[in-house]
Amino acid sequence: MNPIRIGILGYGNLGRGIELAVAANDDMELVGVFTRRDPASVHPLGENVAVWPATELAAHTDDIDVLMLAGGSATDLPEQTPAAAALYNVVDSFDTHANIPAHFAAVDAVARETGHVAVISVGWDPGMFSVSRVYANAIMPNGADYTFWGRGVSQGHSDAIRRIPGVADARQYTVPVPEALEAVRSGANPELTTRQKHTRECFVVAEEGADTAAIEKAIVTMPNYFADYDTTVTFISQEELDRDHAGIPHGGSVIRTGTTGAAGENTHVIEYSLKLDSNPEFTGSVLVACARACWRMACAGETGCRTIFDIAPALLSPMTPEELRAKML
Amino acid sequence: MNPIRIGILGYGNLGRGIELAVAANDDMELVGVFTRRDPASVHPLGENVAVWPATELAAHTDDIDVLMLAGGSATDLPEQTPAAAALYNVVDSFDTHANIPAHFAAVDAVARETGHVAVISVGWDPGMFSVSRVYANAIMPNGADYTFWGRGVSQGHSDAIRRIPGVADARQYTVPVPEALEAVRSGANPELTTRQKHTRECFVVAEEGADTAAIEKAIVTMPNYFADYDTTVTFISQEELDRDHAGIPHGGSVIRTGTTGAAGENTHVIEYSLKLDSNPEFTGSVLVACARACWRMACAGETGCRTIFDIAPALLSPMTPEELRAKML
Repeated sequence: MNPIRIGILGYGNLGRGIELAVAANDDMELVGVFTRRDPASVHPLGENVAVWPATELAAHTDDIDVLMLAGGSATDLPEQTPAAAALYNVVDSFDTHANIPAHFAAVDAVARETGHVAVISVGWDPGMFSVSRVYANAIMPNGADYTFWGRGVSQGHSDAIRRIPGVADARQYTVPVPEALEAVRSGANPELTTRQKHTRECFVVAEEGADTAAIEKAIVTMPNYFADYDTTVTFISQEELDRDHAGIPHGGSVIRTGTTGAAGENTHVIEYSLKLDSNPEFTGSVLVACARACWRMACAGETGCRTIFDIAPALLSPMTPEELRAKML
Repeated sequence: MNPIRIGILGYGNLGRGIELAVAANDDMELVGVFTRRDPASVHPLGENVAVWPATELAAHTDDIDVLMLAGGSATDLPEQTPAAAALYNVVDSFDTHANIPAHFAAVDAVARETGHVAVISVGWDPGMFSVSRVYANAIMPNGADYTFWGRGVSQGHSDAIRRIPGVADARQYTVPVPEALEAVRSGANPELTTRQKHTRECFVVAEEGADTAAIEKAIVTMPNYFADYDTTVTFISQEELDRDHAGIPHGGSVIRTGTTGAAGENTHVIEYSLKLDSNPEFTGSVLVACARACWRMACAGETGCRTIFDIAPALLSPMTPEELRAKML
């Protein structure tokens, strides 16, 4: 079997996570990286990996079986995924939940017209968390869903703090409230407010002479991001931030509690949880498993857009169906 | 949309669990139960549910879209599932792991020849635990798998105790060792013996005048079932057993820990866990979700045998693909 030839568009944290995941799988190889930066400034880990300018995306369709899109959901992917799906089978991690139906429609139209398979919105949320919700809801129609995130770094919240005047750097952790998690896991089916589910811990480096009281107030009162949460702000030095908060851990739990029985007398708790040292490396690992499925669907003659809901789990695995039944069932 | 018409072969604990699960889903209805007992002695919950002798299995192929097989794996299903797959689309919970490949081959041959879809070996283990292992392995190729069962009732171990002379009744609980669970969840990747992973708690009703010391010794030294475990035996009265141990709870955790990074420096923990008040009602709920997928595959013109690995998660859900993308992704 020839290895699946992978390309990556974008070489930030996620792009590097994808690169590492490709290297961990024997049935695929990374052939090239497309970048909007100066290609001479980009140095992939593999020696035989080409670096191409993003403007040359159309020039390598014979070299790549599946193109991984490693851009951001705010501005990159809404443009890049439909454009790339005209040229390649593609996989993206589009994660703006509210805009997924529109993104799906745009990508699906292009992929069908040009005969490609596109897998969108994979990673862990959306992605593995989503598919866990679908399984649990299908099994347990009478119940309630809960999602807890963290303890982990929220890039969006960290960025929001960095935009405050007087802030040099910041790192924000989303933390589930232990008592809320316990109540959910007990099957008590609690109703929980935003504040009862998560707290937010902020580690902030202030610029010299900045008004730290004003920064703290700007953080804890910030609408949407912090005002609805119990938020703690700790000022630290840049050295401390670099030393103690360099990682990008994340994770969380998707829990569904439900009942069965003639009178709903039996309670069941279904939980899927992740504890991740590196959010981008784990996300990249999910995308790469989906690239395998994407290529198999393309080889089977399928076209159009897919999500994790549409992918039979066997397609994600390097094992054959026979091996899976013998070893994993 | 017409509801999916469900039949059940066998009306024990699992058959009743399936019946309750069908009632919890608006898009399906239970039309009849086949039984090897006197049909007059079987009383389904629903008023319009027929009860037929199992010998009349071939007489109702026009009435049933998917037949659920609620028999046991030791002797019932190896015969029943291939025979039923010649007449119906079928779903079973065949759980003798070592014999799954042979069972698959036998059922697949019949289902292909007669144009039916058969979904085998669904439930939670095999079933949801298995598919969790496949997802986790596909995402995280460098890692280790752990499965813990319990705290829950093992029918097989309870039966083994009841076969000991002098035992009137018994209930056996499989219990994961908390320290082992903690070590695995920490990502420490421990090597664990059978004894280190689970303990076994036995509640035994002795016949009057029985030698309880001999019974206890027979239990704790029983090969395969108990000898490799730390086993506790507690003698109680039949009244206590009936009062305190009437339920059939079970559950457990499938955990995969793995690493990513250029030097494996980042650790990830993926866990799927279940806490079930009623093993047969939860298993029945999984089978019924799979019946929906079975019928959809049959309607799409597919034939042959499938496992949970071959079923796109969307097929299990009553929601449309559009609803799933909008609400669950």
